[in-house]
Amino acid sequence: MAENQPLDIEEIVRDSFNEDEAEHLTGKLSQLEPEEIAIALEAMPVEQRVSTWLSLHPDDQIAALTYMRVDARDNIFKQLDEAQLRSLVEGMEVDDLIELLDELPQRIYDYACSRLDESQRRWLDTALAYDEDQCGRYADHDMLIINKNAKVRDAIRLFRQLAEDAEYHDALFVVDRTGRYAGLVHATQLLGLASHLPIETVIDNEAPVVEGEMELDQGSDIVSRSGYTALAVVDDEGKLLGRLSIGEALENVRRSLESQFMHTAGLDEEEDLFAPVFYSARRRALWLGVNLITAFLAANTIGLFEATLAEIVALAVLMPIVASMGGIAGSQTLTLIIRGLALEQITPQTHMTLLRKALGVAGLNGLLWGLVIAVLTYVWFDNWVICIVIGLAVIINIVVSAFAGVIIPIWMKKVNIDPALAGSVVLTAITDMTGFFVFLGLGSLLLLT
Amino acid sequence: MAENQPLDIEEIVRDSFNEDEAEHLTGKLSQLEPEEIAIALEAMPVEQRVSTWLSLHPDDQIAALTYMRVDARDNIFKQLDEAQLRSLVEGMEVDDLIELLDELPQRIYDYACSRLDESQRRWLDTALAYDEDQCGRYADHDMLIINKNAKVRDAIRLFRQLAEDAEYHDALFVVDRTGRYAGLVHATQLLGLASHLPIETVIDNEAPVVEGEMELDQGSDIVSRSGYTALAVVDDEGKLLGRLSIGEALENVRRSLESQFMHTAGLDEEEDLFAPVFYSARRRALWLGVNLITAFLAANTIGLFEATLAEIVALAVLMPIVASMGGIAGSQTLTLIIRGLALEQITPQTHMTLLRKALGVAGLNGLLWGLVIAVLTYVWFDNWVICIVIGLAVIINIVVSAFAGVIIPIWMKKVNIDPALAGSVVLTAITDMTGFFVFLGLGSLLLLT
Repeated sequence: MAENQPLDIEEIVRDSFNEDEAEHLTGKLSQLEPEEIAIALEAMPVEQRVSTWLSLHPDDQIAALTYMRVDARDNIFKQLDEAQLRSLVEGMEVDDLIELLDELPQRIYDYACSRLDESQRRWLDTALAYDEDQCGRYADHDMLIINKNAKVRDAIRLFRQLAEDAEYHDALFVVDRTGRYAGLVHATQLLGLASHLPIETVIDNEAPVVEGEMELDQGSDIVSRSGYTALAVVDDEGKLLGRLSIGEALENVRRSLESQFMHTAGLDEEEDLFAPVFYSARRRALWLGVNLITAFLAANTIGLFEATLAEIVALAVLMPIVASMGGIAGSQTLTLIIRGLALEQITPQTHMTLLRKALGVAGLNGLLWGLVIAVLTYVWFDNWVICIVIGLAVIINIVVSAFAGVIIPIWMKKVNIDPALAGSVVLTAITDMTGFFVFLGLGSLLLLT
Repeated sequence: MAENQPLDIEEIVRDSFNEDEAEHLTGKLSQLEPEEIAIALEAMPVEQRVSTWLSLHPDDQIAALTYMRVDARDNIFKQLDEAQLRSLVEGMEVDDLIELLDELPQRIYDYACSRLDESQRRWLDTALAYDEDQCGRYADHDMLIINKNAKVRDAIRLFRQLAEDAEYHDALFVVDRTGRYAGLVHATQLLGLASHLPIETVIDNEAPVVEGEMELDQGSDIVSRSGYTALAVVDDEGKLLGRLSIGEALENVRRSLESQFMHTAGLDEEEDLFAPVFYSARRRALWLGVNLITAFLAANTIGLFEATLAEIVALAVLMPIVASMGGIAGSQTLTLIIRGLALEQITPQTHMTLLRKALGVAGLNGLLWGLVIAVLTYVWFDNWVICIVIGLAVIINIVVSAFAGVIIPIWMKKVNIDPALAGSVVLTAITDMTGFFVFLGLGSLLLLT
């Protein structure tokens, strides 16, 4: 049980800061899985990351890069000179090249392509004919393929050639003479079979198939739910393009959920913890700018009531409470609907049910918190009218926000805007404007007369 | 390729509303994987969900329940009568029972336990000795176990007994006479071996091992990175408790990331889209209440400056802009740090680097947006002093918020508070109070003299 040490990133990062530990660190990293190395490298500032990465075995260098987030590995690439980049791509397989495609300088990519043989280049061309989010692009060629007419002994011979560190290879992929996928042969099914039998007797053709044009998320769901360790990816003629393994499916599921989480704050999933300050500042600036528009819209709404505010300052003091309660109620509904959309659980059949439910929940909470806030306001300002104004405003804003929290993401999904990214900005604009308008509007009506 | 139909939840939900389609629907569901049935059931309002679920084959009923989110399945349980509950638990294995433990009424649980045989009860006791978030509780007994002294022919016999729908069973788990785990035997390694050989020659003892006391998240990471389809879970004496498969690891990773996403809005990962209105309202009320405290703290800060606001209404109009820019900057930093903490990439060694970076990014964006807002304010209000006040306030609030965005989650993790859940509330309190205080404070100083 050589490597049964839980990953200790803290220790690895500490060692990376200490030159005396360099050898020790390299030894320790060589025991880890490439995914673990990638996670540890991401946890280091760029300087330590590059020197640690350079100390890795070339195979680990490439493997770790393919598992790293785009920005994090890009910050390694930027520190490499021409010769280092060239020698790096010399060791790359086609699937590594596809993964790293966008970050390699054009001339390095061309150099890498020029070194591919005929069959590898065909693979590259086939993969690149699919979009960036399609399964066809990422179909993995690390698989065992056998002809439909083969015998059990051929299958056994193939399995016995497996490298020791091969992952998720408990089945062979069967093709017919034209390269069309015809099913799987499981190692367990071959045990105890006479070697002269045709494999046709044990072909499993019940396994689902992933189509090259499917979105990667959908393909990953199919693999992860199938119970198989890898499924065939086929083109529109049924020809075997490669496989999608459970390992990759898990990685995709992870990335996709992580990006949903990051998008809620306007961040990219590929963001590097240790990106250079100027680079990060530029990326964040955009999101602040978008939100500034929202903030000015809210301020503009308040501006409509300058005269009222000049007379009743208490309204200025209380107005953030109305906006904030609407914001919270809205974002709870929004988040629930975004998850439902991601799981494809929001269907037209239930739109009205969901809306009714959201409005019911918001109505109850509006009444409860409207009342609480009204009472607290009365205690604070000793003014019955303000207390009625804020109570009503809170109820209305919570209900409007819940309505928006259902409608906005469903509409965005329909017109292909990512609700995790854009939903909260639009929702905040609505809850702020509604909150200020209703509260100050009611205040003007009831308090100025 | 019988079941190669991508899951069409929309169609299934539509059918569930139409009694004429009942038979068709049952047929279609029986073709799906239990995970897919669970997702589809969650997408139905409770009435349709219960009637659809009742139409399933008893095995699928149990399997689907174990994959459903707690609230969603709880809403099925609530509709079942005593007899239905009893007959349901009669078909349950120990691992189903462990999964559903918390939602079953005590008398039904007792009834289920009374039907277990000696060895199953021992399994249940062992599992329940571990905490709810520990691997030991969920170790799966659906595995093939062989004695270390067995021969190749015994191993082959075991593999040949595998049920057709068995998942992730490409290896046997080897134990010694005392029940201690000793390694794996892969089906592929047995191919072509003489049947009288001892299996000891092909035991893989390089595979990592999951300890029963490890957190489920950590165990799942180990399995998912190992490249194995299932790993042994052992107790503190090295005895085999069960296995953790890649399928369960993937499910755990999914749940854990989903809960992180839901927590940012104060929601629970187990939340049912179609929970009863009253139930949901009660759950959401708490979060609104917590946020109300924040809102009142902000209002209280504004209240300190009533006199200033009465004189310069423009400040009331502009103050949400300052708070909002701080809020956005802070939540971007917070989100990035929360992801880093979840991946265990935030180590003490780099705290200062992260803080410096966050302050650098905030400084640059503070300067940029402070200037932009100052210019826009000048255009709007034609007042140099207000324009300087808001520019400075924005810079200060963005920098303070970024600082808080780094410090708060790291501190919360340290004292075992979930930063995804509590981080945004505390951060909002800080950004609002700082924003209002700095802006109105500067305004009082510079505008009232």
